[in-house]
Amino acid sequence: MSIEKVHDYIDQHSQNFVSELVRLVKQPSVSAKGEGIQECAEMVENVLQKAGFSTQLIPEKGGYPVVYGELASKKSKKTLLFYDHYDIQPPEPLEEWKFDAFGGKIHKGRIYGRGSSDNKGNIISRIKAVESFLETNNDVPVNVKFVVEGEEEIGSPHFAPVIEQHKDLFSNDATIWEFGGTDYEGRPTIYLGLKGVLSVELRAEGAVRDVHSADAPLVPNPAWRLVWALSTIKNKKDEISIGGFYDNVEPPSMEELQLLDDIHQEEEKKIKTLGLKEFLNRRSGTEAKKALLYSPTCTINGILTGYTGLGSKTVLPKKSMVKLDFRLVPNQMPDEIFEKLALHLHKNGFGDVKTIRHGSTEPTKTPVTEMFVDVVAKAAEKVYEKRAVIYPTSAGSGPMHLFRNQLHCPVVSAGCSHADSRGHAPNENLTIEGFIKGTKFMATILEDFGQS
Amino acid sequence: MSIEKVHDYIDQHSQNFVSELVRLVKQPSVSAKGEGIQECAEMVENVLQKAGFSTQLIPEKGGYPVVYGELASKKSKKTLLFYDHYDIQPPEPLEEWKFDAFGGKIHKGRIYGRGSSDNKGNIISRIKAVESFLETNNDVPVNVKFVVEGEEEIGSPHFAPVIEQHKDLFSNDATIWEFGGTDYEGRPTIYLGLKGVLSVELRAEGAVRDVHSADAPLVPNPAWRLVWALSTIKNKKDEISIGGFYDNVEPPSMEELQLLDDIHQEEEKKIKTLGLKEFLNRRSGTEAKKALLYSPTCTINGILTGYTGLGSKTVLPKKSMVKLDFRLVPNQMPDEIFEKLALHLHKNGFGDVKTIRHGSTEPTKTPVTEMFVDVVAKAAEKVYEKRAVIYPTSAGSGPMHLFRNQLHCPVVSAGCSHADSRGHAPNENLTIEGFIKGTKFMATILEDFGQS
Repeated sequence: MSIEKVHDYIDQHSQNFVSELVRLVKQPSVSAKGEGIQECAEMVENVLQKAGFSTQLIPEKGGYPVVYGELASKKSKKTLLFYDHYDIQPPEPLEEWKFDAFGGKIHKGRIYGRGSSDNKGNIISRIKAVESFLETNNDVPVNVKFVVEGEEEIGSPHFAPVIEQHKDLFSNDATIWEFGGTDYEGRPTIYLGLKGVLSVELRAEGAVRDVHSADAPLVPNPAWRLVWALSTIKNKKDEISIGGFYDNVEPPSMEELQLLDDIHQEEEKKIKTLGLKEFLNRRSGTEAKKALLYSPTCTINGILTGYTGLGSKTVLPKKSMVKLDFRLVPNQMPDEIFEKLALHLHKNGFGDVKTIRHGSTEPTKTPVTEMFVDVVAKAAEKVYEKRAVIYPTSAGSGPMHLFRNQLHCPVVSAGCSHADSRGHAPNENLTIEGFIKGTKFMATILEDFGQS
Repeated sequence: MSIEKVHDYIDQHSQNFVSELVRLVKQPSVSAKGEGIQECAEMVENVLQKAGFSTQLIPEKGGYPVVYGELASKKSKKTLLFYDHYDIQPPEPLEEWKFDAFGGKIHKGRIYGRGSSDNKGNIISRIKAVESFLETNNDVPVNVKFVVEGEEEIGSPHFAPVIEQHKDLFSNDATIWEFGGTDYEGRPTIYLGLKGVLSVELRAEGAVRDVHSADAPLVPNPAWRLVWALSTIKNKKDEISIGGFYDNVEPPSMEELQLLDDIHQEEEKKIKTLGLKEFLNRRSGTEAKKALLYSPTCTINGILTGYTGLGSKTVLPKKSMVKLDFRLVPNQMPDEIFEKLALHLHKNGFGDVKTIRHGSTEPTKTPVTEMFVDVVAKAAEKVYEKRAVIYPTSAGSGPMHLFRNQLHCPVVSAGCSHADSRGHAPNENLTIEGFIKGTKFMATILEDFGQS
């Protein structure tokens, strides 16, 4: 097959591809609010069908449908799977958008709108890469599957049983994950892993009603209970004090650590943008990169107790609540960490503090030595004419572990976003140039994977 | 003068007195919302005038007016001052009231409504005690002054300058404070002191915006900062760890401690009502009574940071806030404690945590040995035919220290509430029997103080 013909086709049809993306961006699909979900799923299914895929909508028990599509290669037995999601983050705060969050406005070479980068740009880019092969070669270099879920932005709570039940349908030799793009220097960035997450809520209770703080010598205060419990979980040096928390942490290999040198963190820029003086614990350089990718964390997401209005109120609250997330690294398992947390609280005299588990995903990564990593990196270098920056893992999370553990495939994340794409934030956007180059990148991966 | 004639007059006019109280209860005067303040102040002034007092409304700079009234005795040079407040707590939650919070409904011998007990019942009871003397004896046993403020329920923020500027006008030989009544056994209870309060807010800040918790290895978390700072302020054993916090605590005298034996705490009832298994740190009996009256405390009133809605959100908050109150005992001064708190935070590495001071009152008490205490206790015994229970101090707070420090008078708190009066809570009420007996009690104090 001729990849040049495919790239030419992509260039010639770029305006159509952009229109298709704008149409998808205009369709809200906010999983957190259940807004526009079915419509968006059907729209994606339709785009797949028009490209030549056989499709189905797989219902998630209690959740939103997964769009599945497959297309057979006439000459290859290998299968490449694309994992994407059609749901988006809520667009709020709306007043901070320059253009309508669902307008798909094109301005100075960028397509603006929630989901333009995360993840609708990638959905269209990947489908169009396949379509361009079919149109120019009447075949695809490998069998192609698409799995496009609708709950990624809310932690994929119903996705695990879908994978479990469709192991054969989803079987593949390699998976391209949903995100990726180029850094501030225009270098393609690819990612080999994700952290795990365990979300937990702790609750403490005191009297059956709020009481006057004059009663403080006699009535237990659930706000203090929670503060003391929390202070045993992580200390001021940022060390997590839960017994055995770090036991199963697998340190990065030498090969992984060497890859960190290639990563340019834009440290100063990030510190300035966030209004900080420096990073936490004065981390910088390699230490900061290593911490970001390899440190498990415990973050207080929110606390609420008692009176929080203006001025003062001499009240002793009846209850208190904290939301926490643990970000986990291989091989820390959410089940294990949740048990260790509960045991820790019990051992430290906080058996009264209730632990409620909200959701979790496991950490996972594909080894740098996996051949598919090389295929993707080389394809990137061909298209972008710059060496790919390989992140041996990333600070983000998602259901990648289901693919690694259930489908036993290598998974590499690569895509068409750029360094100022602003995923999850106001003014999310995608450059048309990045979108089209990303489409060529995906086509090249198809081609090279077929020949590998 | 004949106290019997006065008591008879009170019995004969009890219906009128009740009507007068109902009229005052029907007039809202919620200082927290600025609702009905001026109207209520004028109504109280009017009741005083009708009783024979010369009156004035003293403006508070930036606050609500103080109602002042005075009435000279023809034969005595001694002056008794009554301190009251015409403002009330907000009536919410309204749905928990059996009768309209501003209806003044009379049901089974009780007058229902916000302020019926705290403090409008006492205002009317005291004025009517004086009026009854005038009507029956054409004189009063001592000069009488009333100081009725309108901001007690919000911490009397503008009251200090009023006292300072009216030292001569308010000068007196003894003061009756605003609260008191009978316990579950019908024994009169009188109180000789109040704790001080210092209300403080602590704030911590991180990045200029909320960030994704994936950034936790690099971005400081103000919620953790606050938790760690708080955990250095008070430990799990309920000991306040601020350097020098307990330095100036004056232990109770032997005479005070002996008085605790008379106090019946209704411990079991209180524990049950609050839905607790036991009091804090298993305090009970004398230990519990002593802690309630003599332990300084640090209470978390409220905490707010980050995401506190349903489910989970992997956010790292940009700011956090906690509201605290310290209840202080003689001789802990709010200024001193605030300084020690700030120094403590600085010394413990939390110089970044901002301390905002909201309001304060000083602790104070009148010595048990003061002659006026005996006058009030004996008057109570005469009227209630039971020995008075003398609380050497109380767990509450208020501007009593201004009277003790600026006017140098003995201050005793005594009144007409009963054990189920529910001040500050739904279904606040006063028994008619308690109201009338309380009026006789006040008349007897006037008589006995005149003869002492």
